[in-house]
Amino acid sequence: MIYLDNSATTRPSPEVLESFTKASSHFFGNPSSIHGIGMEAERLLRKSREQAGSILQVQPNEIIFTSGGTEGNNIAIKGAALAHQNRGKHIITTAIEHPSVLEACHGLESLGFEVTYLPVNADGFVEAKSVKNAIRKDTILVSIMHVNNEIGTIQPIEEIGAIVKDYPKALFHVDYVQGFGKLPLNIDKSHIDLCTISAHKIHGLKGTGLLVVKNGVRLFSLAHGGGQERSIRSGTENVAGIVAFVKAMRLAKEQQNEAVDKICELKKYLINQLQSMAKVKLNTPATGSAPHIVHFSVPGYKPEVMIHALEESDIYISTKSACSSKSADESAVLIACGKDRSVATSGLRVSMSYETTEEEIVFFSQQLKKVIQKLSEVMG
Amino acid sequence: MIYLDNSATTRPSPEVLESFTKASSHFFGNPSSIHGIGMEAERLLRKSREQAGSILQVQPNEIIFTSGGTEGNNIAIKGAALAHQNRGKHIITTAIEHPSVLEACHGLESLGFEVTYLPVNADGFVEAKSVKNAIRKDTILVSIMHVNNEIGTIQPIEEIGAIVKDYPKALFHVDYVQGFGKLPLNIDKSHIDLCTISAHKIHGLKGTGLLVVKNGVRLFSLAHGGGQERSIRSGTENVAGIVAFVKAMRLAKEQQNEAVDKICELKKYLINQLQSMAKVKLNTPATGSAPHIVHFSVPGYKPEVMIHALEESDIYISTKSACSSKSADESAVLIACGKDRSVATSGLRVSMSYETTEEEIVFFSQQLKKVIQKLSEVMG
Ligand SMILES: Cc1ncc(COP(=O)(O)O)c(C=O)c1O
Ligand SMILES: Cc1ncc(COP(=O)(O)O)c(C=O)c1O
Repeated sequence: MIYLDNSATTRPSPEVLESFTKASSHFFGNPSSIHGIGMEAERLLRKSREQAGSILQVQPNEIIFTSGGTEGNNIAIKGAALAHQNRGKHIITTAIEHPSVLEACHGLESLGFEVTYLPVNADGFVEAKSVKNAIRKDTILVSIMHVNNEIGTIQPIEEIGAIVKDYPKALFHVDYVQGFGKLPLNIDKSHIDLCTISAHKIHGLKGTGLLVVKNGVRLFSLAHGGGQERSIRSGTENVAGIVAFVKAMRLAKEQQNEAVDKICELKKYLINQLQSMAKVKLNTPATGSAPHIVHFSVPGYKPEVMIHALEESDIYISTKSACSSKSADESAVLIACGKDRSVATSGLRVSMSYETTEEEIVFFSQQLKKVIQKLSEVMG
Repeated sequence: MIYLDNSATTRPSPEVLESFTKASSHFFGNPSSIHGIGMEAERLLRKSREQAGSILQVQPNEIIFTSGGTEGNNIAIKGAALAHQNRGKHIITTAIEHPSVLEACHGLESLGFEVTYLPVNADGFVEAKSVKNAIRKDTILVSIMHVNNEIGTIQPIEEIGAIVKDYPKALFHVDYVQGFGKLPLNIDKSHIDLCTISAHKIHGLKGTGLLVVKNGVRLFSLAHGGGQERSIRSGTENVAGIVAFVKAMRLAKEQQNEAVDKICELKKYLINQLQSMAKVKLNTPATGSAPHIVHFSVPGYKPEVMIHALEESDIYISTKSACSSKSADESAVLIACGKDRSVATSGLRVSMSYETTEEEIVFFSQQLKKVIQKLSEVMG
């Protein structure tokens, strides 16, 4: 199997799964219980929180474990909006965010908030100056993603953070789901208040993730209850899931330097190959994009057909992102980049992981060529 | 180990854990992906949803998988309140709900909602007529738990449902977290619109649960995004966790009849033993309470001291509920029942599971006697 849909989800690594089963069976207590079984679970949780904090260079208590990226983004956005609506009701985000940000913003519009969706340029970059132009005295939140999940563009987070910091009423949220483990992000230096990560994009388990909530940031809780996770996210902690997630974070970090070099090379190779195919239009810019994502279109060719044709060679890639792959035909991200409808409706995404090999990318390139040729013949 | 804190959390059953690891490694795809790997995950998810629906006798699409009981309760309560605030802003609940309900209601009060907290009688029962007296034309939600997690009382859900159904603007939510797998609950007959279950109370894994959302019920989503779970709860589905949860549901149901008979006997025995101890005051009524929970107080004896003394015999029980065990000294539930402060501050809870044996309960009763005697001697 050549699995090249790692931005949709990754295969859990065996070590991660082992951590999970061990913790599940040996430390099954409720961390809130005051007896020894509970205290052991609590200790494990504390250790995981410390490790996550150390990896992200934030305080352990700034780590709020969640059920994934969608929940993290929602807690950040709705939590900030509902808590600070007395200060103002204006929110800034971009037109190319993940649906968990865009739809959360739409939801807030239905509750009377005003949202500015910043445009991106033709390459898919948000310009810092557009944040500067949009930000107002009643802006309470700026939410900008780090790496775009569809085309892989890296947004100028540090530059934007420097603008937001001059507006003390505005919180700065960054969706770091696609970037973590691939690219560094300095949370403090970028003046980030809220930062989302998801486990299943880094060979961790689905249903786990975290939101960094910097000390002093007040949110309306979307999960009230027993007061777990600094009362921001109550609920019996998924101790084993958290342990497994932090294991995945550690593995990702350990491998990051070497692995990123490797997949950068693969990306270069793949982009070269794609540029040599006459029918292919590259959507991922060669520079300023994440190492693991390459997005392209084959105008006139239905992406579903391409995907199923590649599947015959046991290759798995995707149209745009998994989260929106069952809805509309055209990619909102490509439309925001000003692409033609023919390009926006024929997008294909290759997303690699540390496990991706050169042979896989070479084989994929060959098969892609063949598939295009075959389909051309069929279509006449 | 004699683990008698099963209402806080249970040990995951080995079969459940095996289902999880199998699904995690073999069906790791994102159910939203359109290729074969995604479709296999989607099929597994669909099957799980059908099984859960069949167990609860609701439609498969009325099952919304969540990260646990706290999330389920919050989605139900805040989701209903935020969606229907134009109809009215009045909510009814009880004084003895789990913190995930009570605190969610407090949170809504801070957003301008009005909440009536119904009292309970001396035995810990909500009277249906108090719902009748409290319900108004602007009531949009009635949230009443099925089995109380602290003292085990079973609330008259069907009777209350019959009252709520005459108020078509009011949704009826039931926290079924402690009751599921122990006691039947007919969702349709009780006119329930929203019903919460959590996996880790039935030997499933932490971080999974479900909320039944009857067709036609509109909620404001707390997790906007890719539109998963009928757009009520977006986010990449925790397929393996869901598979494992449904496995736990099935095991619980298979064992229910036989096991409940067994633990009913154990409960009777334990209550007899407790009634024979002069210093012990029983808080769980002998009738109308769940089979697995026995709550009592030993006034004048610090519950923490009792718990740690029992731990020396490798016995694990709890003070009130895990979720509130680290906060205030006194039990809000016992105070609501009108108990003396001396009783309310010395509560202990024994909560059994299907795995609990007669020997364990006999041994526990003996050790409890000894501990009380020893402490009496120490205290003079
Ligand atoms: C950029 C980005 N944000 C958020 C998410 C949502 O994360 P999750 O699938 O854990 O809910 C994803 C992936 O689905 C993503 O790619
Ligand atoms: C009655 C009741 N409701 C809700 C919950 C919360 O469930 P969870 O721990 O899965 O968040 C619990 C247990 O903690 C409970 O006993």
